[in-house]
Amino acid sequence: MAGTNRRFVFAFNEGDKDHKDLLGGKGAGLAEMTNLGLPVPPGFTIATGACRRYLTDGNMPPELADEIDAHLARLEAERGKRLGSAVDPMLVSVRSGAKFSMPGMMETILDIGLNDDSVDGLAAAAGSERFAWDSYRRLIQMFGSTVLGIDAARFGAALDAAERSSGAAGDVDLDAAALRGVVAVYKAIIRDATGREFPQDPREQLDMAIRAVFESWNTERARVYRRQERIPHNLGTAVNVMAMVYGNLGPDSGTGVAFTRDPATGAPGVYGDYLSEAQGEDVVAGIRTPVPLQDLERLDPGSLAELRRIMALLEDHYRDLCDVEFTIERGKLWMLQTRIGKRTAAAAFRMAIQFLDDGLIDVKEALGRVTGDQLAQLMFPQFDPQFEAKPIATGVPASPGAAVGVAVFDSASAADTEGKTILVRRETSPDDLPGIIAADGVLTSRGGKTSHAAVVARGMGKTCVVGADGLEIDAEQRQFTAPGGVVVREGDTISIDGTSGCVYAGAIDVVPSPVVEYFEGRLDAEQRRRDPVVQAVSRMMIYADERRRLGVHANADTPDDAKRARRFRADGIGLCRTEHMFLGERRHHVEELILAESAEEQDKVLAELLPMQLGDFVGILAEMDGLPVTIRLIDPPLHEFLPDLTELSVKVALAEARGEVDLGDVRLLRAVRRLHEQNPMLGLRGVRLGLVVPGLVAMQVHAIAEAAAARIRAGDDPRPEIMVPLIGGTEEFELMREEIERVLHDVSEASGIDIRAKIGTMIELPRAALTAGRIAEHAEFFSFGTNDLTQTTWGFSRDDVEGSFFPAYLEKGIFAASPFESLDEEGVGRLVAIAVEEGRAAREDLLIGVCGEHGGDPSSVRFFDRIGLDYVSCSPFRVPIARLEAGRAAVLKPTAEGDTR
Amino acid sequence: MAGTNRRFVFAFNEGDKDHKDLLGGKGAGLAEMTNLGLPVPPGFTIATGACRRYLTDGNMPPELADEIDAHLARLEAERGKRLGSAVDPMLVSVRSGAKFSMPGMMETILDIGLNDDSVDGLAAAAGSERFAWDSYRRLIQMFGSTVLGIDAARFGAALDAAERSSGAAGDVDLDAAALRGVVAVYKAIIRDATGREFPQDPREQLDMAIRAVFESWNTERARVYRRQERIPHNLGTAVNVMAMVYGNLGPDSGTGVAFTRDPATGAPGVYGDYLSEAQGEDVVAGIRTPVPLQDLERLDPGSLAELRRIMALLEDHYRDLCDVEFTIERGKLWMLQTRIGKRTAAAAFRMAIQFLDDGLIDVKEALGRVTGDQLAQLMFPQFDPQFEAKPIATGVPASPGAAVGVAVFDSASAADTEGKTILVRRETSPDDLPGIIAADGVLTSRGGKTSHAAVVARGMGKTCVVGADGLEIDAEQRQFTAPGGVVVREGDTISIDGTSGCVYAGAIDVVPSPVVEYFEGRLDAEQRRRDPVVQAVSRMMIYADERRRLGVHANADTPDDAKRARRFRADGIGLCRTEHMFLGERRHHVEELILAESAEEQDKVLAELLPMQLGDFVGILAEMDGLPVTIRLIDPPLHEFLPDLTELSVKVALAEARGEVDLGDVRLLRAVRRLHEQNPMLGLRGVRLGLVVPGLVAMQVHAIAEAAAARIRAGDDPRPEIMVPLIGGTEEFELMREEIERVLHDVSEASGIDIRAKIGTMIELPRAALTAGRIAEHAEFFSFGTNDLTQTTWGFSRDDVEGSFFPAYLEKGIFAASPFESLDEEGVGRLVAIAVEEGRAAREDLLIGVCGEHGGDPSSVRFFDRIGLDYVSCSPFRVPIARLEAGRAAVLKPTAEGDTR
Repeated sequence: MAGTNRRFVFAFNEGDKDHKDLLGGKGAGLAEMTNLGLPVPPGFTIATGACRRYLTDGNMPPELADEIDAHLARLEAERGKRLGSAVDPMLVSVRSGAKFSMPGMMETILDIGLNDDSVDGLAAAAGSERFAWDSYRRLIQMFGSTVLGIDAARFGAALDAAERSSGAAGDVDLDAAALRGVVAVYKAIIRDATGREFPQDPREQLDMAIRAVFESWNTERARVYRRQERIPHNLGTAVNVMAMVYGNLGPDSGTGVAFTRDPATGAPGVYGDYLSEAQGEDVVAGIRTPVPLQDLERLDPGSLAELRRIMALLEDHYRDLCDVEFTIERGKLWMLQTRIGKRTAAAAFRMAIQFLDDGLIDVKEALGRVTGDQLAQLMFPQFDPQFEAKPIATGVPASPGAAVGVAVFDSASAADTEGKTILVRRETSPDDLPGIIAADGVLTSRGGKTSHAAVVARGMGKTCVVGADGLEIDAEQRQFTAPGGVVVREGDTISIDGTSGCVYAGAIDVVPSPVVEYFEGRLDAEQRRRDPVVQAVSRMMIYADERRRLGVHANADTPDDAKRARRFRADGIGLCRTEHMFLGERRHHVEELILAESAEEQDKVLAELLPMQLGDFVGILAEMDGLPVTIRLIDPPLHEFLPDLTELSVKVALAEARGEVDLGDVRLLRAVRRLHEQNPMLGLRGVRLGLVVPGLVAMQVHAIAEAAAARIRAGDDPRPEIMVPLIGGTEEFELMREEIERVLHDVSEASGIDIRAKIGTMIELPRAALTAGRIAEHAEFFSFGTNDLTQTTWGFSRDDVEGSFFPAYLEKGIFAASPFESLDEEGVGRLVAIAVEEGRAAREDLLIGVCGEHGGDPSSVRFFDRIGLDYVSCSPFRVPIARLEAGRAAVLKPTAEGDTR
Repeated sequence: MAGTNRRFVFAFNEGDKDHKDLLGGKGAGLAEMTNLGLPVPPGFTIATGACRRYLTDGNMPPELADEIDAHLARLEAERGKRLGSAVDPMLVSVRSGAKFSMPGMMETILDIGLNDDSVDGLAAAAGSERFAWDSYRRLIQMFGSTVLGIDAARFGAALDAAERSSGAAGDVDLDAAALRGVVAVYKAIIRDATGREFPQDPREQLDMAIRAVFESWNTERARVYRRQERIPHNLGTAVNVMAMVYGNLGPDSGTGVAFTRDPATGAPGVYGDYLSEAQGEDVVAGIRTPVPLQDLERLDPGSLAELRRIMALLEDHYRDLCDVEFTIERGKLWMLQTRIGKRTAAAAFRMAIQFLDDGLIDVKEALGRVTGDQLAQLMFPQFDPQFEAKPIATGVPASPGAAVGVAVFDSASAADTEGKTILVRRETSPDDLPGIIAADGVLTSRGGKTSHAAVVARGMGKTCVVGADGLEIDAEQRQFTAPGGVVVREGDTISIDGTSGCVYAGAIDVVPSPVVEYFEGRLDAEQRRRDPVVQAVSRMMIYADERRRLGVHANADTPDDAKRARRFRADGIGLCRTEHMFLGERRHHVEELILAESAEEQDKVLAELLPMQLGDFVGILAEMDGLPVTIRLIDPPLHEFLPDLTELSVKVALAEARGEVDLGDVRLLRAVRRLHEQNPMLGLRGVRLGLVVPGLVAMQVHAIAEAAAARIRAGDDPRPEIMVPLIGGTEEFELMREEIERVLHDVSEASGIDIRAKIGTMIELPRAALTAGRIAEHAEFFSFGTNDLTQTTWGFSRDDVEGSFFPAYLEKGIFAASPFESLDEEGVGRLVAIAVEEGRAAREDLLIGVCGEHGGDPSSVRFFDRIGLDYVSCSPFRVPIARLEAGRAAVLKPTAEGDTR
């Protein structure tokens, strides 16, 4: 395609599937099918450059009209018909087609070229007046709503009125006369709304449609979508102009969509829907119910055979699941569109293995066909597949999982109700936060994936279905009505599926994910063989593990966590938080430590804590024999171990008002007030605690060293690593390192065992990242705490913002994803990259990992691999996801968009 | 000095004042004086490299002994005496001398070379047995305490005992026999403490002394000091070995210190102290009271004339105030040390102008002689100089100013006492915070400049004197006793001077600083001429303004502030905070805005606020006609306008307990709970508020635009600039910019006046700095909010940490200065530099300033000049300081230490 920059219009046979930048996705697919010799109606694509010029200049590029004329002339010659002719006219469709498909853009206008004259010519040529007038009313309806921007409901109402007055059951029952009447009403609507007549010149119709496609690139919805998906605003869209073929030419005509295999399960065999006597949009619009594709066997076996042949050819050609749109015009099959088909997570894994085993793709490509996100979906508990139930409603699946509980309609009920609850709200606001926290699942009738409910529930890992807009929720009456008329009252049990978006009345059994059962080692060989998804997942994990460079560690605070980490094949423990060890029944020791009024009292409490900590560490080191265990010194502010200031203040005030003063409470309140911080996240915590509370760090290191000595005595190979949290610069680290080394040395001397532990630090403050070179001179390892690093780099704390302004930020596209879920590569990632580069420059063998929650996030894992980290660490359940993504990262090159999806 | 790297020892005539790296400060001064032909006793300097080798290897460099021997032989030849000889022995002194003087290092040992034999030789040669034994006991005392590390008090006690038993009034009254007895006791102390005899070999004495100097480089106190002052640990110290001359040879001998002019006022004329019959350390130790230097006129006019000649020569030579140490040995003057002398702020300004007018220095050098910190000291209110009062105690001046109030001894009294108070504590802890906040000044008897009281008071700008260790504070009895016996009881008035550290009983009149009176334009020509300090300051300001590149704007929120900014010669307003405009009587409007339950109610409140905001802006723009006024849109979280959660919770709970429920309070509490954030600093504020509270930004921009239109109608040239706070990335800014432009456009249309305003943003989050290149594509200016940027880069908030761990961090040298006072160049400064570089790369004419408090901090101003900012903005009172520093920055090159002090 030499000289492609010099013209705007290309015939379908001039491009191929790799020209999406130029031709858009739809245009590239049409070109590919044309070149394969498939029956594609002739047409041409106006390339994206024309759109860019139009948007920059505000006018059509002057040379475009001539190019379009030339291509139209070619089409007319090929079809032997003329656009808008009063005798057997040629009609065309106009479809937008950007590189990425995008909601909010104008989609399709069919039947361009019809006017008051050519409608008769079409009728004569087709031998059907009804067909011609049906096509004309379709043109005016689509043109009116999409090109002229008139509310589509006005046309819908007019059609309904016509159906009612002629006693028709649907649009197919309207005869030519009725449709002629509809056209007259439609024209009046256009005249009324725009003050102009419906344009009769076919060329003007075409130009206006092309212009409308160009302008739809900049609708608010399209802009927001591009911001959310980080699609550049300057790509522009292509426009596909195609000679019409007609699925509404009678019972031997129709239109359909098909997949080369089942996109839900990945099972082999063509799969799709067909609607006779219809044009393309009717299937999608759902105004009539299509029949399964298999029914074509009865209606038109020849076309079905041809379709099957084409589908097989396309799948072989694309080496992937394809979906297509087709039309049959009086027994002749036409292909209108093809693309790589969307699929469920289960189908993705199954098909990747099928294509691999069929020799169509190699392991590398198979790894490219599945994602960590899909594996994550397969790991949620799910409704028992044996259970037969029909959803009473469907919404947007916003946060995966399967939740069962009684319906509650406000926060107070969610908190007060015993047992599991599903919070049902029209939409949620920050006021509903307590309810979301208390409930087991959230169901709303409004909002999309960036709504408040969706964002908050996802942040908390709660099952959530939003935008189930068939539900009529009556919070006053504490009930909702589903589309089929089912009424659910407060206290009734419902079940919601956050992966499919389905809502069920009653309780459905929840079963553990077979994939998790497999990872946990609870499936025998027969069970594994019987489940094709488990089989596919297990094989993909082997391929990923063989190829990955990145280590995958687990975050684990207890021996039980450590056990699971080993089962899930973690390469070590990347974060063992010690503060959890001070909760529960040991909390009062910390309280004593804080209330201690002398150094002696403090030392006494620390001495009591020592054997407990020792026990914790012995247990974890025993489970992880031979693997590294990175232990973080105590991190959170001390007041977290004390009661809440407001609650205790109220308690003491009420007691005083009653004349009953509890001196213990008063003393406690004094301590809480003393330790109270305006912004505890930015207060006395982490290494700062270690530097101002004497003996605390020494006690912890002492326990670690004694635990290591005990395991060495038992013949094990314990590998503790000691990690200092929240440093801002090397000075803090050096002082801590001195103290840690002193204690290690003392315990080695006392025990006669040479205890070694790497000493390193979290990098979780911007300043630590910016001064990493100097820190690395003294630290043996870095572990990025990307949760805190995100908080300080952006200046917001997860606790405070996820329920407040995050939904608005996601909605407006300020974030593509919550930066707490996927690492913000531009900001936080830049700090990480600086620290990696400057840390390694200062110490070549510096070990670098990440232990924030991003360690288990697929796209973040790929980023960490790219910038050269040694390992990621994440919760045990996300270890397989990180292993898979680490394998994918090793074999897949980032695309131009910096992504490997 | 070719080949200086190949040897360690240099005679005094081999170096000069520019060899401080090699010879240390003291050695360089001795070399300079020797080369000037001044009477310096002969000697040599062991260069810093020897110390570095010693500290690295743990041993003296082997070649060092030979070099020392050679130089000792030269000394012996020059003096015609031999070290340790039993006949007329040569003695030497050993003094440390690093490049920077440093507390905690070993200072001086005199009289090395004396032993049981040579003491008699010295007696014979000097003709004074008493002198010889006095020198011997001095040697053993200094050697014992500094080289052998024996508690100095043991020697002091033995001397006291000898004085008592012989009825002597002081050490000069002890005769030879008594001193011989003291030597015997001293030797026994050494034997007892070390198990060894006092070394009799003079060469061993010398080696041990040199080694002790080397080792004192690494005392904990020296290490902390270096960390605090950011002096590298690897410099090492030099050692100066000098032939002894004797100030204790009788009434015609003595020792003294002198300044070339008065270091307190800068008045011309030699100034100093003299002590006869004494060796060097006696003056500093203060065991006897020295006499003013003028008294030498009577005692030894010849030596005084010679000293005056030398002082004049030194001042001409160094072209600066010098101080010296000298000794007179039987009428012969010897110079032992010289260096550039310390001075008060007033003296610095006066002397810079004097030297300039004398033609000794040029304007550039004069600017180098004064600092913004000194100017700041001159701007505090001060005690009336006419007032005659003697301090009852003196402490460390920790936070400047003059405070008068009644003494209180705990936080509760500070809070409860009407009128002004001075909080008096032994030391303070976080528990005393409320007291420090309530008091007008703080006085402690313990701690230094990094103590809790000092750090917190400085952070709050309160006058503070710490470590007044003469005070006996009895908090139980609520009183303190001053050294002279004065008792101050709770309720008695005291006065403290945070610039001098003096404490006075009773109230002393506080008068405004004459320098501020001058800046405020309240001095007439005669008053200006009469005050040499005001005169000096005013001339230096002219020189600075002529030379500075950096603009200096003021932070001002009200027309009054703006007026002062103009008087103080600000080039504009760099930060006009609009949130202050919502306090006071308008607070209830904000409360209504928050409590509004519909968009209509919100719009109504916003409409009420509009005219008030309009009035604010009209006033400020009128004051600043023709100069830029940068207005920041509302920044703080909304809950700041509501009552405190804990207080309101207690109030409502108590009311409920009494059965009296105030529905308004209950509603308010609900709102406070809803808006309550764990970490408000990291919550819903700044641009986030603007993006989620509809109409708020539009109202503010509307008011700004209307105000500008009003001023244009009045014939003015208003220059508003609109600043968006707290953005994390370009997406937020672009959305705000669209809204701001829309409102400006609408008001322009409606008013018929073309209203223009630059639209820019704060850079106050790490992420904004890291993505500044993209932001600059849309922003016309940047203003660094270095307070917030420091908080997030370090991950601590000023409110929470200054009183908690900052004192420990300053004490341990983790910080050299609070990063909220002086910009942390390594971390925060790096982000600023990144943003400047990448912002300018994206937009060449990007205007860049800073409006955090660092904008008025001298060392930060120099940094901002260096990296190319266009202006700094600070509180009006700091505008002159910033102007001076900006002028200095323009003419002074940073030294190797990156500093221009």
